[in-house]
Amino acid sequence: MNTVPVPHLTTAHSGPLHQVERHLVDHQSDIESWFRKQWRKTPAPFYASVDLRNAGYKLAPVDTNLFPAGFNNLNPAFEALCIQAVQLAVERLPHQVDRILIIPENHTRNFFYLESLASLQQIIEKAGFEVKLGSLIADLTEPMTITLESGKSVCLEPLQRNGNSVGIGEFVPELLVLNNDLSSGRPEILESLDQAVTPVLGLGWSNRLKSVHFRHYQEVAAEFGEHIEIDPWFIDPFFRNCGEIDFMQREGSSCLERNVDVLLKEIQEKYDKYKIGCRPYVIIKADSGTYGMGIMTVNSVDDILELNRKQRSRMSTIKEGQKVTKVIIQEGVYTHETWGEEETVAEPVVYMIDHNVVGGFYRVHDARAANENLNAPGMRFEPLAFDDCCISPERKLDADAHPHPHRFYTYGVIARLALLAAARETEAQV
Amino acid sequence: MNTVPVPHLTTAHSGPLHQVERHLVDHQSDIESWFRKQWRKTPAPFYASVDLRNAGYKLAPVDTNLFPAGFNNLNPAFEALCIQAVQLAVERLPHQVDRILIIPENHTRNFFYLESLASLQQIIEKAGFEVKLGSLIADLTEPMTITLESGKSVCLEPLQRNGNSVGIGEFVPELLVLNNDLSSGRPEILESLDQAVTPVLGLGWSNRLKSVHFRHYQEVAAEFGEHIEIDPWFIDPFFRNCGEIDFMQREGSSCLERNVDVLLKEIQEKYDKYKIGCRPYVIIKADSGTYGMGIMTVNSVDDILELNRKQRSRMSTIKEGQKVTKVIIQEGVYTHETWGEEETVAEPVVYMIDHNVVGGFYRVHDARAANENLNAPGMRFEPLAFDDCCISPERKLDADAHPHPHRFYTYGVIARLALLAAARETEAQV
Repeated sequence: MNTVPVPHLTTAHSGPLHQVERHLVDHQSDIESWFRKQWRKTPAPFYASVDLRNAGYKLAPVDTNLFPAGFNNLNPAFEALCIQAVQLAVERLPHQVDRILIIPENHTRNFFYLESLASLQQIIEKAGFEVKLGSLIADLTEPMTITLESGKSVCLEPLQRNGNSVGIGEFVPELLVLNNDLSSGRPEILESLDQAVTPVLGLGWSNRLKSVHFRHYQEVAAEFGEHIEIDPWFIDPFFRNCGEIDFMQREGSSCLERNVDVLLKEIQEKYDKYKIGCRPYVIIKADSGTYGMGIMTVNSVDDILELNRKQRSRMSTIKEGQKVTKVIIQEGVYTHETWGEEETVAEPVVYMIDHNVVGGFYRVHDARAANENLNAPGMRFEPLAFDDCCISPERKLDADAHPHPHRFYTYGVIARLALLAAARETEAQV
Repeated sequence: MNTVPVPHLTTAHSGPLHQVERHLVDHQSDIESWFRKQWRKTPAPFYASVDLRNAGYKLAPVDTNLFPAGFNNLNPAFEALCIQAVQLAVERLPHQVDRILIIPENHTRNFFYLESLASLQQIIEKAGFEVKLGSLIADLTEPMTITLESGKSVCLEPLQRNGNSVGIGEFVPELLVLNNDLSSGRPEILESLDQAVTPVLGLGWSNRLKSVHFRHYQEVAAEFGEHIEIDPWFIDPFFRNCGEIDFMQREGSSCLERNVDVLLKEIQEKYDKYKIGCRPYVIIKADSGTYGMGIMTVNSVDDILELNRKQRSRMSTIKEGQKVTKVIIQEGVYTHETWGEEETVAEPVVYMIDHNVVGGFYRVHDARAANENLNAPGMRFEPLAFDDCCISPERKLDADAHPHPHRFYTYGVIARLALLAAARETEAQV
């Protein structure tokens, strides 16, 4: 493994540690002990990535992805950490596993995704498993090899069902790893298999609701806040959700307006309490679905009333043409981490395999403001790999002198809280 | 964690891969699958370091240390790997662990050891545990803090027994990690504890015999050799052992002479078979004990007959004045790895936590020849941290173009075979 020079985020992580971060670092042993208890009760999903936003006074998850892409954006220096974590995640299974089948997204031209897929395959291969990519693409009849800019390549092969198992020709895996978020539903070919499938099919976006995840997160944050004695609001964004909504027909909008109003007031109360001079805002997003589609930033109820046709249309559909009928209204958390002299907004994304934090990167986009979503359609962020693995705080270090390990450690803590919420979500599904 | 520049070993690992290495890399999936089965049957010890010697045509362990020091010599870039491995090793225990007590060696002036101890403590602390050092020093009545050159410090505290548990004041650990090889016997204070102790007391050098370890290793190498179809001799040094020996009284020396003679002939046969032009030699060392004391290199039976009084005396006692009464006679494996333009001999040492390889370093000493022991008394080796973590071979890479990851991977394989032998040794003790 080569040590690749990583650009140091000059502003994003060189500012002094904020109160929340300081508090988390000071309670490291308590926190780790608490996590150990939690994982004994509720095992973590196979992998996940968590989008965080760091307002300084508040550090919170805004999205938890159980079918993570972006493995190519991680710092190659931490590949070994990923390899070790995969080995241990697979060893946890009650049976011996030697062959692993990844079920990827159906993309064949999204090279960002395919680079991630190649990186993921490489990590699992290096962990000592035979790995193949079993595609769900309906009209794929023979292996399709795609060479990538990095020099890597992926070979998508048609998935075959044989009785209660799937495979590719002679290759019959003992474990299926889903890297397809199942936006368009649970594929028939994966139902009732004798093989182990991770994450469970029920966690695909066709079944999963963000509001359910954040309900679990709310509980997790409350328990954690009690354990280390902080107001859980510092790590948990408020949210509310509505029943059925039709943006085009303006149905359900009174519920939406009411909830936005309540939420903005609740945030303002916290801002008043903690003397925070920012303007509250909320994010409205599809309750199921991903890819940052169907997302909007709202500063007042008027913003909803004034939505034009184009904006309504954009909110109505997400990936693979799925219609948005449910939304979650979430407290907007400012991104006060910036990078470089131009103070570009930077949003951390943390990766975990099993319950191990294995690194992450910053999404950096200079055309976005501190209250906008950095994972929006058409958005081209620059990934900046963390130069830290998020698990190694220097307890004895003066906090402000060299805050990197501390800040990264706090990212890892909050990301694992979201992971724990996902673990409880999984448990409820099984 | 900062990325620290590591000196690249120019010669030591830039030469072409040898046949054994190539064979191991080509069988990576098979090998990892085999290891997974083995660890299911026989769990690995908590940690270990293994000294290897690489003759090119042969790559073999020559010593397995279950109470490893030298953690300060590891590449800081892989600290995260150590942290993660410690977390997972401790999680494997059936009970929750939050406090860990390390039982160190009784050294107070061996700063090399104390630096290692400080590094080990730091790794376990960063893994999220409270850690204290409980010393066995008989006349230690209060905490003794020693500040080290690195800026770190260690605080040795007197171990107290209370009923069936030990601790330091209020600090009652759920786990004791032995970092003391118990050369002078099993300490009374550690007998019959309700607390978990790792490694088990029976693996201290007062009980352990190298010949027993290498008997287990022989079996492991034979099974492994059969699995991947190589002559186990390529990875296993021949050895024989004698009954009671008294070097000063020249008792038992006829057995020694006979065994040396047989062993040299057996090695010559293999050298003939594989057309190896080197001169066979053997190493005679104390069957129990460590620290490279009581070790000698022998090229012929005459070498033993000609031992002078001083040499006999040096062979007679090892650490803490323990008398040598048993020896193991082991096939000498040449170190054909060298470093730098001056072709300094370099011997790899590989570290493992649980069954995870977490890095290693080279012992480099320019005053030693290829058939001498590099861990001898008075020896000042230069540690050169590996710039690879030994778990990440590039399967698709042309072997000779950039052999680093391959060579390091093979180190990790052989070290784990020795670890497995130690695991079987432990199982037999429990």
